[in-house]
Amino acid sequence: MSLSNYSVAFIGLGNMGGPMAANLLKANAKVCVFDLVPQAVAELQSQGATAAASAEEAVKGADIVISMLPAGRHVQGLYLGDSERGVAGLIDVLEQNTLVIDSSTIDAATSILVGKTLAEKGIAFVDAPVSGGTAGAAAGTLTFIVGGEVSAYEKAQPVLSAMGKNIFHAGQNGAGQIAKICNNMLLSVLMVGTSEALQMAIDNGLDPKVMSDIMLQSSGRNWTLELYNPCPGVMPNVPSSNDYTGGFMVDLMRKDLGLALDTALKSHSSTPMGAMAQNLYNMHSMQGSGMRDFSSIFELFSAQNKQQ
Amino acid sequence: MSLSNYSVAFIGLGNMGGPMAANLLKANAKVCVFDLVPQAVAELQSQGATAAASAEEAVKGADIVISMLPAGRHVQGLYLGDSERGVAGLIDVLEQNTLVIDSSTIDAATSILVGKTLAEKGIAFVDAPVSGGTAGAAAGTLTFIVGGEVSAYEKAQPVLSAMGKNIFHAGQNGAGQIAKICNNMLLSVLMVGTSEALQMAIDNGLDPKVMSDIMLQSSGRNWTLELYNPCPGVMPNVPSSNDYTGGFMVDLMRKDLGLALDTALKSHSSTPMGAMAQNLYNMHSMQGSGMRDFSSIFELFSAQNKQQ
Amino acid sequence: MSLSNYSVAFIGLGNMGGPMAANLLKANAKVCVFDLVPQAVAELQSQGATAAASAEEAVKGADIVISMLPAGRHVQGLYLGDSERGVAGLIDVLEQNTLVIDSSTIDAATSILVGKTLAEKGIAFVDAPVSGGTAGAAAGTLTFIVGGEVSAYEKAQPVLSAMGKNIFHAGQNGAGQIAKICNNMLLSVLMVGTSEALQMAIDNGLDPKVMSDIMLQSSGRNWTLELYNPCPGVMPNVPSSNDYTGGFMVDLMRKDLGLALDTALKSHSSTPMGAMAQNLYNMHSMQGSGMRDFSSIFELFSAQNKQQ
Amino acid sequence: MSLSNYSVAFIGLGNMGGPMAANLLKANAKVCVFDLVPQAVAELQSQGATAAASAEEAVKGADIVISMLPAGRHVQGLYLGDSERGVAGLIDVLEQNTLVIDSSTIDAATSILVGKTLAEKGIAFVDAPVSGGTAGAAAGTLTFIVGGEVSAYEKAQPVLSAMGKNIFHAGQNGAGQIAKICNNMLLSVLMVGTSEALQMAIDNGLDPKVMSDIMLQSSGRNWTLELYNPCPGVMPNVPSSNDYTGGFMVDLMRKDLGLALDTALKSHSSTPMGAMAQNLYNMHSMQGSGMRDFSSIFELFSAQNKQQ
Repeated sequence: MSLSNYSVAFIGLGNMGGPMAANLLKANAKVCVFDLVPQAVAELQSQGATAAASAEEAVKGADIVISMLPAGRHVQGLYLGDSERGVAGLIDVLEQNTLVIDSSTIDAATSILVGKTLAEKGIAFVDAPVSGGTAGAAAGTLTFIVGGEVSAYEKAQPVLSAMGKNIFHAGQNGAGQIAKICNNMLLSVLMVGTSEALQMAIDNGLDPKVMSDIMLQSSGRNWTLELYNPCPGVMPNVPSSNDYTGGFMVDLMRKDLGLALDTALKSHSSTPMGAMAQNLYNMHSMQGSGMRDFSSIFELFSAQNKQQ
Repeated sequence: MSLSNYSVAFIGLGNMGGPMAANLLKANAKVCVFDLVPQAVAELQSQGATAAASAEEAVKGADIVISMLPAGRHVQGLYLGDSERGVAGLIDVLEQNTLVIDSSTIDAATSILVGKTLAEKGIAFVDAPVSGGTAGAAAGTLTFIVGGEVSAYEKAQPVLSAMGKNIFHAGQNGAGQIAKICNNMLLSVLMVGTSEALQMAIDNGLDPKVMSDIMLQSSGRNWTLELYNPCPGVMPNVPSSNDYTGGFMVDLMRKDLGLALDTALKSHSSTPMGAMAQNLYNMHSMQGSGMRDFSSIFELFSAQNKQQ
Repeated sequence: MSLSNYSVAFIGLGNMGGPMAANLLKANAKVCVFDLVPQAVAELQSQGATAAASAEEAVKGADIVISMLPAGRHVQGLYLGDSERGVAGLIDVLEQNTLVIDSSTIDAATSILVGKTLAEKGIAFVDAPVSGGTAGAAAGTLTFIVGGEVSAYEKAQPVLSAMGKNIFHAGQNGAGQIAKICNNMLLSVLMVGTSEALQMAIDNGLDPKVMSDIMLQSSGRNWTLELYNPCPGVMPNVPSSNDYTGGFMVDLMRKDLGLALDTALKSHSSTPMGAMAQNLYNMHSMQGSGMRDFSSIFELFSAQNKQQ
Repeated sequence: MSLSNYSVAFIGLGNMGGPMAANLLKANAKVCVFDLVPQAVAELQSQGATAAASAEEAVKGADIVISMLPAGRHVQGLYLGDSERGVAGLIDVLEQNTLVIDSSTIDAATSILVGKTLAEKGIAFVDAPVSGGTAGAAAGTLTFIVGGEVSAYEKAQPVLSAMGKNIFHAGQNGAGQIAKICNNMLLSVLMVGTSEALQMAIDNGLDPKVMSDIMLQSSGRNWTLELYNPCPGVMPNVPSSNDYTGGFMVDLMRKDLGLALDTALKSHSSTPMGAMAQNLYNMHSMQGSGMRDFSSIFELFSAQNKQQ
């Protein structure tokens, strides 16, 4: 499908945003980009994007605005402005019927606030956080989990399809964020639980590959055993077989677990497993593993200097 | 495949052993049965089995002996005897080249001890604990996880195939037990982790069915989301949609988690997630849910009288 | 010591604030009070306070302003105003050299923000959260944990001494809040840990009173064994011997644990024990115990319908 | 008090048993000693003990037998014999009315079995595990927690008083062991909980000494804050201020936690905090800290390479 009729503004061209914008260009969309880092803008310009000198300039004439930013305060500042710093938000310049797609992973409360405030001006907003990492961003195989009105979700689909493979509608504004962090909290539990089960098997003389195969065909089956075994040597081409490089960094998992537990505190939800995983990942990062793949949590259980 | 050339002794005809022995009869095996409960023996007799008055009598002339007993002390007593009570074990009467298949779920140490002691007399032994519950026992669709020599494993296969669908070779004696409890420990973690993720989504306004669908296609995917969703109403024909009746009882999960943590203590393995699940299942049982399906742990997170 | 030279404004006359203000009156301070609930104001008026129709009116001419409010947003609104609602804050009317003492238990970030903003106008601020409950408030035996400049701490002391017995200086603004929640997080861990140790002793045939005495004189000694034994019948005149009524409510502990874990998330601190306690208190409250004393967590471990 | 009328056999002269036997000699008891290590025997001989060539020889003519051994199997083997190895137990040679005091820290089940079996021959038995470490053993300031009949407890007291300062009667046989591990399980929870509270205070800018003082006088008070602060520099002359050397080793705490959780599994007790502590100590040991003082668990929370 060609996006040649679409005029897209893309704000935030980091490790994820850059390749995502590039995929829109490949799908023939008109893309105007902005980032605080001039090099990031130049890189996209070289691939066919129009460079803007500011976010305000980037969104002029855009049908669709996409943002990919680090945290909730950046998203709120971009769209609603920051009265403390006297900075205006895009809300003052966006035209009615523009669709805003925020793909940042942030707290749901901010997504809800931004969505509600934009809606008062007739501007549609969806939160559409992604999973799939930088590899997925480059390959255009990301997963998008979308929160917003059905009409906005449907309008976003062609554009998201140019950047991703799976697109889910989770519910109203904020639901995309909630669904993503619930999923990632569960993922952290799967990773830790699988690691300790595998290491206990090893400690009792079993072969981790045999144990993995058995659990994969039994009631212990889960995504980590299917695609991302944390035990070195069991599966080729995964981070555990590459000294835990590549993949999804421990500190990114910590960020998501922080958002998850913050959400649980606010909704008075009990999450003992998620809290356990969050603390283990915290300790793991503090011991120097923050930049390694999150499956390296396996090493908490398999330390080489294991003593009797 | 017909087992008409096989002469099998079956000891222990409870909720699991009874239907397992019946499936051997359906496959045309000659089956001689024993149980301390006369009714259980009579029931199998009516289906074509020969009744024995004792375990010793049951194993006479058998090629293969299968046992299905509640705990390690029963298995050890049956095969090795109990010097305190002056009871002799089957080890004194079994002929060389008999194959012993113990399908009880017990501690690996006992399996290893029994296997080693029988081997000294030339009697082959495999531990072959099952999963699949009473429904699987009746339908002949159990999963067997086998520990023992390859030759014994291969000899056991035709007989196990008459009672089950999946048959795994986990390693040497005891490995069947270890693999089963590692799997079930992980299963308990999946169940608790999935429950808390789903309830947190519900607490934040998401539909549990939508959330389940998203996680099923994302990195939170696991066996409970595929086949055994713990949230009432999401999936038909599972215990959660039937008031948590049927299925796999909380107190059976507690038994398996007890074996798992006992194993972890002995092998100095760290199992924080397994320990958390074990304690939560303990509390859940203490509050009166011991006989309900293990997916009812969901209610720890979704109590109706939830307060702000 | 007489406070007859002090003119105090007291804002927030709830279960804690009311008796605290009354103790200032007993110490001969001039006290002008305000609360949104007219009855609360009338009650203090009958004890000698001057009633104010608004917070602004209450603080006129006051040397010292004391506030006792439910949450951070109330404190921020009171002092800094709420631009969304067009409400001005006391910051616009307080005179230089006034000392503000906020005894609310709130997030440290708000205390720091309010303290810093007031300081810019020359107004001194201390956060001075209390422990000791309504009984301590009535008896004038509260503990105050104070965050702020030494000079402000010293100025606050005479007034705090009229309402409390122990007054600590924890550090700069916010440190009072941090110290209180660290202490209360640890208290929750002591309570749960002591409960499970006592119940395990009981489960193995020991007398809980004997076990308590032994631990009290050994390395398990802690505040709960000294003054607040959670096992019914061990200690007279504590909530556990009075069906867990009175004392410190489960839902207040949940509030403090919520503040603690929110702080831990922000400072990237690992708190596995605190997180465990928070989740157990959450579940306990969800099962209907929110209004009972926090030592009732003992019942999670001692459920009467305990099964084998 | 002089023990000159007492004839004591002491078996097991390790780091604890050696100095304990020496204190009996100082109190003028006649002491006959045995250990598998000849040097240990010679050392006591040089202090006035009679050396025996075997346990059987040591107990001849003894009124009181004391043993201090590493694990349950050693205690059972010593008193009841080991039929597998064809070794007889002291039960065959001890005279009626001998009092046996086993000060080993072992599983309660073995203490109960040994006590019951000896009782059938008219031999009194108490389990009397100690705390206080090698320093307490040398200084004669150990704590003994005794399980057994009141008459046996009273008979043991003078002898125990020569070796210790605090002597508790916990209940029947086995109760000494149970009480000790309940206490030590709680101690591990106090240590971890105090560590995480202190580090969270530090992470938020508080002085750990100030924070410790405040909690010591508040509801967070516990033995570790009184006598064994885990944060370096807060308290002089404790392991944390001496690079975590001396004191009570991590691997000894692991041993006690292993006994505690094994007990919990058998009595179906829920111990989420104890299980958490056990897993954290396990991981801490695996990372190379097994021989350091158990307060070094503080470092799990304060890692120097802490990242944001």
